[in-house]
Parts: sequence; structure tokens; C-alpha cells
Amino acid sequence: MKSTPSKIQPRFRVICGRNIAIGPGKAELLEHVQSAGSISEAARRMGMSYMRAWKLVKTMERCFTKPLVKVARGGAGHGGAELTENGRQVLELYRKMETESLKATAGTRRRIPRLLAT
Amino acid sequence: MKSTPSKIQPRFRVICGRNIAIGPGKAELLEHVQSAGSISEAARRMGMSYMRAWKLVKTMERCFTKPLVKVARGGAGHGGAELTENGRQVLELYRKMETESLKATAGTRRRIPRLLAT
Repeated sequence: MKSTPSKIQPRFRVICGRNIAIGPGKAELLEHVQSAGSISEAARRMGMSYMRAWKLVKTMERCFTKPLVKVARGGAGHGGAELTENGRQVLELYRKMETESLKATAGTRRRIPRLLAT
Repeated sequence: MKSTPSKIQPRFRVICGRNIAIGPGKAELLEHVQSAGSISEAARRMGMSYMRAWKLVKTMERCFTKPLVKVARGGAGHGGAELTENGRQVLELYRKMETESLKATAGTRRRIPRLLAT
């Protein structure tokens, strides 16, 4: 298997006590909620249960000052959902960190795969 | 618990097929081998079994073209061990990636904790 620079990714974790406020998985979940417009559809796209997705959202909400996801209707969130302004900002800052990191490490990330067995 | 920028760390993983050639744990192990001069002492410092440390080294050796750890004596590695030139280079490039990433994301990493509940 040929190794390429894309095989090296920064995985940022924002720690909040014993929890992860946001990391690669939660960022992906927020992105899916944004594009799917519902937590259940976002969960389905990520191959996780609705309950698991809901728990991840709840952990994020405990960690951040303001809510990240706004449930539009349907009680516990089986209906529509969207990101709040705060949710969009958190996701944007998270992706910004990744982009900055990828850009800054481009040269070094190209050097490592050369040392790998192909 | 007050959140600080140091709570956000890039965790790079260099993927090699289904394995991780090097990530935060393996980089730390290499560092301990370097400073401790033995795999068993490095394992002890990380609170892992010798067998676990040995398996991590073996996974790294499969992923990289050249050996990373040189066992000085004692057969299966219970004796002294040190990093090879290749091992030092891999560790150096890994730490370089982290440093570059931390530097490039400093501003953004300061903005995220402000959104966290303290």
C-alpha cells in the first residue's frame, strides 16, 4: 500500500475535563447535522445510532457555554435540527485549526512517507 | 475546570495500511527508549507491559523501511536499546510536525477555549 501525505492528518481534541468537547468525530457529526438538517440522518450517515449521536451532542453542549445544535421540532431531536450560530463558529474554528495545521506541516508531511515501507 | 489553549493538541497519526506507523503513543515510546536506553524501562515509564511496548516497536518496524530501535544486547530486548539514526529521524520529523502545527494554530487555539464553559 503506497503511503501518501494524505495518510497523515492532524486530529485535534479540545479537552473539557474528562470529556472531549470537540474532536474529529464530533466535528464530522456537526457537519452532517448542518448538511442533513437532522440528528438522526447525521447519525445514519456516520453509521452510528441516534442515541450515540444524541449523546455526543449532549457532551458538546455541556462543554460549551452556548448550545451548538438547535432542534427544530420533534421533541428529543428526531425531527429537524440545525447548527446554532455558536455551533457554526465552533465548527469553523475547528476546521480552521486543521487547515492551518495542514498548511504549516505540508513539507514535513511529505518527508515522512518516504521513510515508510511501501 | 478552566480551559486553556494547552488543552488543544494536534495528534498526528501516520497511517500504514491498517496500522498506525507512528502516533502520539509510539512517539512517546521512542522518546522514552531514547532517554531510558531500554525498552523495558521505557514501558515501565509509560505504565505499559514490556510485551505491549515490544509489539508497538514491531509495528513501527513493519511500517518503516529501516529499523527504528536497535537492541544492544539481551536477546528479545530486555537488555539495552537505543534509537537508530532512522528512529531519531522519524521522531524528529514527528515532533517537527507537531511544533509547526502548534505554531500555525496558536491564534485559533486561543479562540476556542473562550467558547467553552469554565
